[in-house]
Amino acid sequence: MSQERIVRIERDILSKNDAYARVNRARLARTGTLALNFVSSPGSGKTTLLCRTIAELKHRMPIAVIEGDQQTSNDAERIRATGVKAVQVNTGRGCHLDAHMVLHALDDLPAEPGGLLFIENVGNLVCPSAFDLGEAHKVVVLSVTEGEDKPLKYPDMFAASDLMLLNKSDLLPHLDFDVAACMAAALRVNPRLQILTVSARTGEGLAALYAWIEARAAEARRLQPAPEPMT
Amino acid sequence: MSQERIVRIERDILSKNDAYARVNRARLARTGTLALNFVSSPGSGKTTLLCRTIAELKHRMPIAVIEGDQQTSNDAERIRATGVKAVQVNTGRGCHLDAHMVLHALDDLPAEPGGLLFIENVGNLVCPSAFDLGEAHKVVVLSVTEGEDKPLKYPDMFAASDLMLLNKSDLLPHLDFDVAACMAAALRVNPRLQILTVSARTGEGLAALYAWIEARAAEARRLQPAPEPMT
Repeated sequence: MSQERIVRIERDILSKNDAYARVNRARLARTGTLALNFVSSPGSGKTTLLCRTIAELKHRMPIAVIEGDQQTSNDAERIRATGVKAVQVNTGRGCHLDAHMVLHALDDLPAEPGGLLFIENVGNLVCPSAFDLGEAHKVVVLSVTEGEDKPLKYPDMFAASDLMLLNKSDLLPHLDFDVAACMAAALRVNPRLQILTVSARTGEGLAALYAWIEARAAEARRLQPAPEPMT
Repeated sequence: MSQERIVRIERDILSKNDAYARVNRARLARTGTLALNFVSSPGSGKTTLLCRTIAELKHRMPIAVIEGDQQTSNDAERIRATGVKAVQVNTGRGCHLDAHMVLHALDDLPAEPGGLLFIENVGNLVCPSAFDLGEAHKVVVLSVTEGEDKPLKYPDMFAASDLMLLNKSDLLPHLDFDVAACMAAALRVNPRLQILTVSARTGEGLAALYAWIEARAAEARRLQPAPEPMT
């Protein structure tokens, strides 16, 4: 295939994706739902972090989860064990969730007003950055067991995200990981990025993460349109 | 004085201040200068933090400082010892810098293109929040020796700031200060606030602070208008 043809196909795919993303965004807005798209390399600890967050927030607001993985429904089962509804999307050979997959997954989830929708993307620090799923924010999770230069090596993902969670901070005493250098790299790529250091194991930083989420969930509820009058 | 009259006077003061702030902002834009307005309680460590930051950034860009204090020029002298130009503004009975004071101080500073202007406000966690000086960003410095509930007690300052520096982190092992609770409080007041934990003594977090500053300085330079053609 010629280079021009590849570029044209990529553009077509992304413009179709964006059309579905707009549909998802409008649908989420109608129920005042805050959707967060969690992206990261495989093994960054996204599912563990989500399980703890759900356990601690589910009494404050309705929560549902869309789990993206190439294969298996292991992660959805871990999420369901917390007591909330989860839909597993298997992308097969696909390396990312797209907005059309999310549209169908939304059909299988309760549309409870004022809720929180977590989308756990396929573990991949590259491709998911290009796909808007209709979420309010991408949240990139980086484990301190990865290199501090990751934001410079994978800038698109850090540029596309609004919040970075530097996860597994409980391991810092055992590692040679320079937190400030990592933050500096991330801020060089995205000067507006918000950064929180967290540990799903010890709970470090989770109070701040919950405050970040709750402020945005309140905003999503506030912007929910009034229901149409009955006719 | 009647309550209405007090409110009207306050509104007049702020609208005059805002007019001067617009003049300052246009003047700073002409030289592509990034102006940062550092605000905090007294004793948060602003001057020490600025001295170290200046020592480490002055070889990368021109730096000048406006120092606000009710009395004395001690802080300006500390800043000058780093080798950059500093103008001391004594506010006398005034509890904050205003844009008119900054306008005059700018006359006494070199207008080097592409530079950085630090404005160190009077130590006061209340009044400076209402006064736009023409800066690009307010940076609120909070020391971990203060209470973690400060953002809830002084919400205006944290709402008006774009970056919070949680300073003196080297003292954390000796204190009963809950970092995540403090960050949560700050994010509740201002969900878009960026937060960095720093120590001017150990240097913790300063690489991230410098990256934050440098990204914005580069943006200010990029937005600098082309010089007018000579006639």
